[in-house]
Amino acid sequence: MAQTRSKPKNAFYAQSGGVTAVINASAAGVIETARKYPKKIGRVYAGNNGIIGALTEELIDTYKESKKTIEGLRHTPSGAFGSCRYKLKGLEENRREYERLMEVFEAHDIRYFLYNGGGDSADTCLKVSQLSEKMGFPIQVIHVPKTVDNDLPFTDNCPGFGSVAKYVAIATREASFDVASMCKTSTKVFILEVMGRHAGWIAAAGGMAADQNNNIPIVILFPEVPFDRARFLEAVDKKVKKHGYVSVVVSEGARDGDGRFLSDRGLTDAFGHAQLGGVAPFIAGLIKQDLGYKYHWAVADYLQRAARHIASKNDIQHAYAVGRHAVRMALTGENAVMPAIKRISNKPYKWRVEKVELSKVANVEKKMPGSFIGKDGFGITGKCREYLAPLIKGEDYPPYKDGLPDYVRLKNLQVAKKLKPFEI
Amino acid sequence: MAQTRSKPKNAFYAQSGGVTAVINASAAGVIETARKYPKKIGRVYAGNNGIIGALTEELIDTYKESKKTIEGLRHTPSGAFGSCRYKLKGLEENRREYERLMEVFEAHDIRYFLYNGGGDSADTCLKVSQLSEKMGFPIQVIHVPKTVDNDLPFTDNCPGFGSVAKYVAIATREASFDVASMCKTSTKVFILEVMGRHAGWIAAAGGMAADQNNNIPIVILFPEVPFDRARFLEAVDKKVKKHGYVSVVVSEGARDGDGRFLSDRGLTDAFGHAQLGGVAPFIAGLIKQDLGYKYHWAVADYLQRAARHIASKNDIQHAYAVGRHAVRMALTGENAVMPAIKRISNKPYKWRVEKVELSKVANVEKKMPGSFIGKDGFGITGKCREYLAPLIKGEDYPPYKDGLPDYVRLKNLQVAKKLKPFEI
Repeated sequence: MAQTRSKPKNAFYAQSGGVTAVINASAAGVIETARKYPKKIGRVYAGNNGIIGALTEELIDTYKESKKTIEGLRHTPSGAFGSCRYKLKGLEENRREYERLMEVFEAHDIRYFLYNGGGDSADTCLKVSQLSEKMGFPIQVIHVPKTVDNDLPFTDNCPGFGSVAKYVAIATREASFDVASMCKTSTKVFILEVMGRHAGWIAAAGGMAADQNNNIPIVILFPEVPFDRARFLEAVDKKVKKHGYVSVVVSEGARDGDGRFLSDRGLTDAFGHAQLGGVAPFIAGLIKQDLGYKYHWAVADYLQRAARHIASKNDIQHAYAVGRHAVRMALTGENAVMPAIKRISNKPYKWRVEKVELSKVANVEKKMPGSFIGKDGFGITGKCREYLAPLIKGEDYPPYKDGLPDYVRLKNLQVAKKLKPFEI
Repeated sequence: MAQTRSKPKNAFYAQSGGVTAVINASAAGVIETARKYPKKIGRVYAGNNGIIGALTEELIDTYKESKKTIEGLRHTPSGAFGSCRYKLKGLEENRREYERLMEVFEAHDIRYFLYNGGGDSADTCLKVSQLSEKMGFPIQVIHVPKTVDNDLPFTDNCPGFGSVAKYVAIATREASFDVASMCKTSTKVFILEVMGRHAGWIAAAGGMAADQNNNIPIVILFPEVPFDRARFLEAVDKKVKKHGYVSVVVSEGARDGDGRFLSDRGLTDAFGHAQLGGVAPFIAGLIKQDLGYKYHWAVADYLQRAARHIASKNDIQHAYAVGRHAVRMALTGENAVMPAIKRISNKPYKWRVEKVELSKVANVEKKMPGSFIGKDGFGITGKCREYLAPLIKGEDYPPYKDGLPDYVRLKNLQVAKKLKPFEI
């Protein structure tokens, strides 16, 4: 490798929070772009299990991976370097951890900090950049957006969301076709529980299963609309009477008028413990009790966010682009910014990546607009369909081997430690 | 259409029981093949909602559908004409219904009865053929095999099963990649509940998610192996300690030493009612209580059998072939038979369709061989992998429109009724 007079500085990349079908595409965007500028970026080190890897000095040398393997990240779901649920506390409460980060960065000649995550990691990015300024240790901080929750502000959408939306729309369409076949003598109500603890973005995608050709009857339960048992059961009953069946897409975040999650008043296990994540069986119970219809229910859980086999092509392109632009921003001297997706037009779908200041992003949650939810509170509007349509568009199949997606596993070789151990 | 001296007789086709991702491919095989022989087969009438359509004289004229639409059936999941869960009782108890069938067949000039289903429909076929002989009304009966349960004898596999197996293997692989990323600070156990009330064929497919490259730790709970809580939790704990995480694939039919379904002693809803289909949350409860690991669980339910978007290519070819051969058998004068899949070799995978007498098939259930389950009762053997490998092989993507599979909906126009109404 060519050496310039001043040795090129290294970059640190980490994955944070719940992983997605396309976060590794962002990683590929980061690593492949950085490799093009060996005079400016020495190596990209990845945190083993996210930011924890930086604290414990477990740094993965991504340059030990072949070109082909890094290309394979583009079609591999999950977090290839490991992710973590670990939020750094405020600077005042937890100066020790921030200082440790700086220590590790200094020891390994790291001057670029690229953090791939949602709202919490945007906040961490901002704090690291503030501390860097205070301490006079120059770190350029770039936040790479990712979250299936689609709740980051100033970006049209969050990489990871489009693929979950596509999965949920397809699952709802397929299951609805199934129930339609069975409803004469058997199942009349199908209930699909989807993610989205705080917002109905993912549940809304279920509405895309219906179009003018298939006329699938769907009732959506959004966290944004307080659950009204009588009105809900009436809507279900009406659709069953008209169409013979109905599909219910319920957000795990659906709640009642008091803000209590429906899943919390649902099931108890054999030991009387409350079970989380079980709003689908709770809804099924209501239908059985009040309407007596035969039902089936599914809980997609991780399957929805890991389903790289049917990821959205546009989503993958977004994910890759924010990774690529993050490196470019780093190279042009940016700090405390996030590459965001800007929608230019719907038909044809055009978009570009633009720069947003992290101070604007951190701690702001993007809610689903009221105008996206239909008047009765159980469906999506044309405006919502317009927004979602390009996000689920396009297929980008992974390669298959022996009937299964050929996802890559990295070697994840770590750089030799230089510092004393650190307790987290 | 050319007329021969004796007017060609019509065929009746119906879909029975739980539908699959590929049963419509069998329908396409039947209809496309029949259309090639207009001098021998007049029209193919499909039962509206399965056999019920024959009893109520609701006959769909499949020849009103365009060539393109019928082609579209090949890539459309579910039962395009409607299916039903309706088992005709024994001849003695229920002669009335069998005689009605004959009456409808006679009124509409039907001499071929093609019934697409599992064990129960094979039994119905046999009874219809026996009655036809007794009554002297000549009906040729062909059973077209279908069932995700894979429990029909004398056929290497049942169309529908291969695609569910592929779905479960992919889902297990994808979710396992997800959990592997999260396990350092979050979820360590992922539980996927799959179909298979009586046999572990579908659960076994979860084992295919692992291969030498990815080394995914999996524990499978088969209906064939009585559940032993202590041994199961030990197996889970061991894998978590070694790999950091584990995926559990549990059959809905998993049961304890007394033959009681685990799902039956699992959850109760808010009203204290027992909930079926909830073995995954039950298992999650045990893990939480005894091991304390963070878990996630998913219930695939209809999604697994409706997932045409990722159906197995070999499965689709099998499904189409049994439809095509059913018509051919009808044309060569066969009666009370079933086209079955005969495996010739594994590598390369070669197979053909052969004829099996229905008297041998009816009321025989094919169990999973003991040699397919590993010694510890929690995994699959090499022999099982060899069997499953070709069944999940190959992709056959449906066309997409606006990001979603473009599945066809039929017009389903019915033939004018000629008989008095019939109460079922």
